[in-house]
Amino acid sequence: MKVTAFAANGPHEKLKPFSYEMGDLGSEQVDIRVINCGICHSDLSMMNNDWGMTAYPIVPGHEIIGEVVAAGNAVKNVKVGDKVGLGWFSGSCMSCHECMDGAHHLCPSAEFTIGGRHGGFADYVRSHWSWAIPLPEGIDMDKAGPLLCGGITVFNPIILAGVKATDKVGVIGIGGLGHMALKFLNKWGCEVIAFSSNPDKKKSILEMGATRVVDSTNPEELANIAGSLNFILNTTNVTLDWNSYLTVLAPKGKFHNVGAVLEPLAIPAFTLITGEKSVAGSPLGSPALTRTMLEFCVRHDIYPITEEFPMAQVNEALEHLESGKARFRIVLKN
Amino acid sequence: MKVTAFAANGPHEKLKPFSYEMGDLGSEQVDIRVINCGICHSDLSMMNNDWGMTAYPIVPGHEIIGEVVAAGNAVKNVKVGDKVGLGWFSGSCMSCHECMDGAHHLCPSAEFTIGGRHGGFADYVRSHWSWAIPLPEGIDMDKAGPLLCGGITVFNPIILAGVKATDKVGVIGIGGLGHMALKFLNKWGCEVIAFSSNPDKKKSILEMGATRVVDSTNPEELANIAGSLNFILNTTNVTLDWNSYLTVLAPKGKFHNVGAVLEPLAIPAFTLITGEKSVAGSPLGSPALTRTMLEFCVRHDIYPITEEFPMAQVNEALEHLESGKARFRIVLKN
Repeated sequence: MKVTAFAANGPHEKLKPFSYEMGDLGSEQVDIRVINCGICHSDLSMMNNDWGMTAYPIVPGHEIIGEVVAAGNAVKNVKVGDKVGLGWFSGSCMSCHECMDGAHHLCPSAEFTIGGRHGGFADYVRSHWSWAIPLPEGIDMDKAGPLLCGGITVFNPIILAGVKATDKVGVIGIGGLGHMALKFLNKWGCEVIAFSSNPDKKKSILEMGATRVVDSTNPEELANIAGSLNFILNTTNVTLDWNSYLTVLAPKGKFHNVGAVLEPLAIPAFTLITGEKSVAGSPLGSPALTRTMLEFCVRHDIYPITEEFPMAQVNEALEHLESGKARFRIVLKN
Repeated sequence: MKVTAFAANGPHEKLKPFSYEMGDLGSEQVDIRVINCGICHSDLSMMNNDWGMTAYPIVPGHEIIGEVVAAGNAVKNVKVGDKVGLGWFSGSCMSCHECMDGAHHLCPSAEFTIGGRHGGFADYVRSHWSWAIPLPEGIDMDKAGPLLCGGITVFNPIILAGVKATDKVGVIGIGGLGHMALKFLNKWGCEVIAFSSNPDKKKSILEMGATRVVDSTNPEELANIAGSLNFILNTTNVTLDWNSYLTVLAPKGKFHNVGAVLEPLAIPAFTLITGEKSVAGSPLGSPALTRTMLEFCVRHDIYPITEEFPMAQVNEALEHLESGKARFRIVLKN
């Protein structure tokens, strides 16, 4: 099968039309017709080789909503005609300790949708069946794409940290990831503080479900909520004043980082020790948890706020994202 | 009541005989006759004002085994004649959220045995009843003192991290704290790696319950166990190559720090994120957990390895500790 796609040939280059042969379908693999595909900041990071692991040409796109059009003879759980979602991962070994333990996203030989194979800025993509997540009945396919990467990335920490409805929580960075975190935590029953220094976003942040917006660049506002939050989720990838946020945590509070900041986090031991606090991180989430999240989204009508572009305008869409103007997640439609 | 004690009058000064008036007994307080008292590294830190919070003269000593000799009229749980243990804390407000939640060690107005009042290098000490922990039947009082500070400091993390019998765990720093951690984790049923670069200690480390000794200064030995440990407890207070140890953790592994290292921990976000790992800290433990620990110690015959000095030789004992020769915890006997 010949795939029609958009690819970058080097760092900081525009995407150009590109086609490639998919090759033989593996017995445990499925081919998926791309209905639409979200754009994630990590598409930009991979296009620009920020993490030193990009193979060019690269076809970005890993927030895919599509339909299974072909299935190998050992495929389980999905069949031709099923609507599925596909995110950052598109393969795991299925037999290592992590996979057998339900943590396929931690499999040492997990395959990336846009590393080693080509992604969703295309008419077709390929995946292991385990990562082709069946879409639950009633889901809004136009908006669900970003849930497969951005959504599960902020959903998993809520589960890992054992966040309870009675908790007071905070979210740092109200962008593509952060705004979905606000929606999840609102439906979780929590008191939700959004940390933002952008007054233009305040009204929309409250509409997303935040109880309150705190300007984290204002030391007085931070001091007012010292020792109060049980959980803080950081979605930014820049170096922050970590100790300020750890001080905002209540005793036993948990700081969770999903932002791939390159400089090591400077964490004062005394703050961790005296408050019995912790700092954790996580990548996306397992296929099982992704299914659970999608059901939760349908039940509570949780979707990212999206802007739509036709797939052919992918370069304009990427410019819009890079300019910081996206409100809040872009979906490319085939 | 007049108390006969040993006190330091300034940083890096020897202890000298010192006496003071205890004053009126509070209604919720008890006076305790000191039978013996362990020496902890934090006695030295406080004597030298390393943490900037020492009030001189200071009477050190916060690993106390004693007998209640007076009790205020509102004292609960203990009575005159009871044998009790007293550790780092000797008072909590009893009414804040942390106290009401069973975390009296996280009470914002918790009182320190050797800060604001005088400690156990003396014939008597005073405490709120809640921190005078009744000793369970059959406990070896000669060796139990260090359990009240060093012991609970390494026991609490095992509980907080939810360590299971099937876990593989590691302990960094096999000194006063670390050797007690080995004993606890051995009885927990775990495979226990001791990180030590001192070959002289190897035989005794294995006798304490370690399954294996790994020389953490040898990169090859660390590489051999990469990705294998579910829990690592750091008892040292020096800057380590944090990422090396995080790499030794298995996916979902937990690094727990009880060492009050002054320089912030440099923690790479990528390592936390890709492995779903965490870094935590904690101070001592609650009175309830201290009771539980003491019962566990009696049931499993877990005690620190101690050396005894008469209280009158406290300066010689402190020199022995500072020289790094203590094997592994010193107890001063009255």
